[in-house]
Amino acid sequence: MKKGIAEVPGFKCGVGFGGIKKTEKKLNRPDTLVIVTERPADFSAVFTTNDVKAAPIKVSMEVKGKVSGIVANSGNANACTGERGIADAVEMAKLTSQLTGKGRFLVASTGVIGEPLPMDKVRRAIAEAVKNLGKAKGEEPARAIMTTDTFPKTAFKEADGFVVGGITKGAGMIDPSMATMLAFIGTDAKVEPELLDRALKEANEESFNAITVDGDMSTNDCVFLLSTGLGRDIGKEEYSYFVEVLKEVMKSLAYQIVKDGEGATKVARIKVLGARNKEQARRVARKIALSPLVKTALFGCDPNWGRIIAAAGAAREGIVEEKTELKIGKYLLFKGGRVEYREEEVSQYMKNSEEIEIEVNLNLGSESFTYLTCDLTYDYVRINAEYRT
Amino acid sequence: MKKGIAEVPGFKCGVGFGGIKKTEKKLNRPDTLVIVTERPADFSAVFTTNDVKAAPIKVSMEVKGKVSGIVANSGNANACTGERGIADAVEMAKLTSQLTGKGRFLVASTGVIGEPLPMDKVRRAIAEAVKNLGKAKGEEPARAIMTTDTFPKTAFKEADGFVVGGITKGAGMIDPSMATMLAFIGTDAKVEPELLDRALKEANEESFNAITVDGDMSTNDCVFLLSTGLGRDIGKEEYSYFVEVLKEVMKSLAYQIVKDGEGATKVARIKVLGARNKEQARRVARKIALSPLVKTALFGCDPNWGRIIAAAGAAREGIVEEKTELKIGKYLLFKGGRVEYREEEVSQYMKNSEEIEIEVNLNLGSESFTYLTCDLTYDYVRINAEYRT
Repeated sequence: MKKGIAEVPGFKCGVGFGGIKKTEKKLNRPDTLVIVTERPADFSAVFTTNDVKAAPIKVSMEVKGKVSGIVANSGNANACTGERGIADAVEMAKLTSQLTGKGRFLVASTGVIGEPLPMDKVRRAIAEAVKNLGKAKGEEPARAIMTTDTFPKTAFKEADGFVVGGITKGAGMIDPSMATMLAFIGTDAKVEPELLDRALKEANEESFNAITVDGDMSTNDCVFLLSTGLGRDIGKEEYSYFVEVLKEVMKSLAYQIVKDGEGATKVARIKVLGARNKEQARRVARKIALSPLVKTALFGCDPNWGRIIAAAGAAREGIVEEKTELKIGKYLLFKGGRVEYREEEVSQYMKNSEEIEIEVNLNLGSESFTYLTCDLTYDYVRINAEYRT
Repeated sequence: MKKGIAEVPGFKCGVGFGGIKKTEKKLNRPDTLVIVTERPADFSAVFTTNDVKAAPIKVSMEVKGKVSGIVANSGNANACTGERGIADAVEMAKLTSQLTGKGRFLVASTGVIGEPLPMDKVRRAIAEAVKNLGKAKGEEPARAIMTTDTFPKTAFKEADGFVVGGITKGAGMIDPSMATMLAFIGTDAKVEPELLDRALKEANEESFNAITVDGDMSTNDCVFLLSTGLGRDIGKEEYSYFVEVLKEVMKSLAYQIVKDGEGATKVARIKVLGARNKEQARRVARKIALSPLVKTALFGCDPNWGRIIAAAGAAREGIVEEKTELKIGKYLLFKGGRVEYREEEVSQYMKNSEEIEIEVNLNLGSESFTYLTCDLTYDYVRINAEYRT
């Protein structure tokens, strides 16, 4: 069994079948998730920076102090739903408090934008999830928040004196860009709130903020990190160790989102090194990662270095063509200019790799940044051109 | 016959068949173009802002004073080709000067990145083009610069006392973004160089800088505007009239690029109005125009307003959900929240329109901006995933 947030000491999960979206019902997949902590938990959160924020985001942004858990639904994003949406999100959190006899809950939704929540179904599903608290283990909580995802996404890390476990969802509308995707992470480590905030932001920059599927930023992105404090005490001295563990879990979750990118057949790891500073590296990597011409070339297993160099230059971060080096896998394709290589060999490497390594050395400094992206395929177009159902 | 730059008094065009790219030969399409002005012409130019600039861009950027014309080839971009590329671009310009017995020439290339120019073929084709000067009329000069374009692109406007005519090419790697695409425009109006510069920049903002196909910026983008001065004198008083005419020609050329966007079946006109300032309107319109989720919804004729509103918010230009209104065609779909509409009717409008109008009113001010984009289709993926040939 793959472990996730339910395996973190002090966390219990329950799921419900509300039939919020017809297709979820067909798949026999739960659409509602309640996560409860044994005792009130400190938490940290990062939210989408989209100007248009879904109702649950607005409601969760107001939560201060400790929380008793999270309530979430899939199939309906409760976004662009006005005052009624806010009232519905508030009710989801309150109902979960009442039924569990606990304190405040964070709330999250994911799915179609612009439809009002079918609250009868949601209420029924929350009641069911609460009744079943403790029964949803491993991948089951992650299944309850899937939409176009094709597999549930969990990560778990047993560290020295504490554990970190989490779940996430996402496959399209992925370009967190200073916000993040829907992800719920728990730890039993005892971390004071300010350190928890710092750790989440730091880990986030290299995980959820370093991926893209389609450059589209969601109205519902959020990451919640809850700490029950049942495990080891994390002070300033243990901080960097804690962040490393958290990063590992969050990077694993972020990787799974890209791997499950809508229609994707390949993951590409775009590493930009030799940059003057991290921001330069990040921007160049991001521009390459977003380029539809690079993404279609990945799909075609075409080592089209010209498109990669053109995308890097389009970032307008002052790269110097004459200094730039480019490798795909172990193959050097460009070193201040075209170099000789056997194209068939590189194409074969791309065909045989589920994960393609692209390394761009700017030779301007010593900073680096790695961005994850996926290929752009017929299936991405099919999935997103089909009429909403 | 559709008129273009060859129909502007004082301009002569000739084309040559070099066989620079095998496919061009197969199509029996010329791949080399020489444009000569009867007498030395004032000119203005805008170039790609990509850090990686093709050799002909670097060479043309150095040209000052008057020019006698333009030499261009398709099938090979002469980009990322190092010192040899520069020497080749310089030779193209010099050879054209020698063969015509004229002054300096601007030079441009378009096609595959990273391959050295086959100079034997290029020399032969330039000689042929010079020999045939005056024979290429109407769409023929535009045909010589086509790559993945499916039709030649020309525009012509007869104004009071002068004419403006131009040609352009482009179908993929289109996101000029403060630079522009390959376009050659001629006028017989007599415009002093500073005014000519100002006019080109002004017209460019609303034409080539207001379109996107795939968000990828080329290494070779450039627009050349040449004025022979045989026609009407344009001073400060006639300036705005001249700019209007120039805009009309450049907007027509820009529109044709989007219409011919790789794999595109629909053009969408994204109009953002009620903005605090033009820049806010431009950025929101651009974010919508670039969104793959919006572009696939256009292909699917799905009036998915949620994706449009989410993309508008992702621009992070401070839009206010409660104030925002959205129309597709004449249909109001969102007014600070969902409004009732017949989805089938809107979808039918999208199916029946080659050009879909999307209007987003931010209700924050009185400025507006219109961006042109196209849909994202299976064919875009096919064209760009296929191995280079």
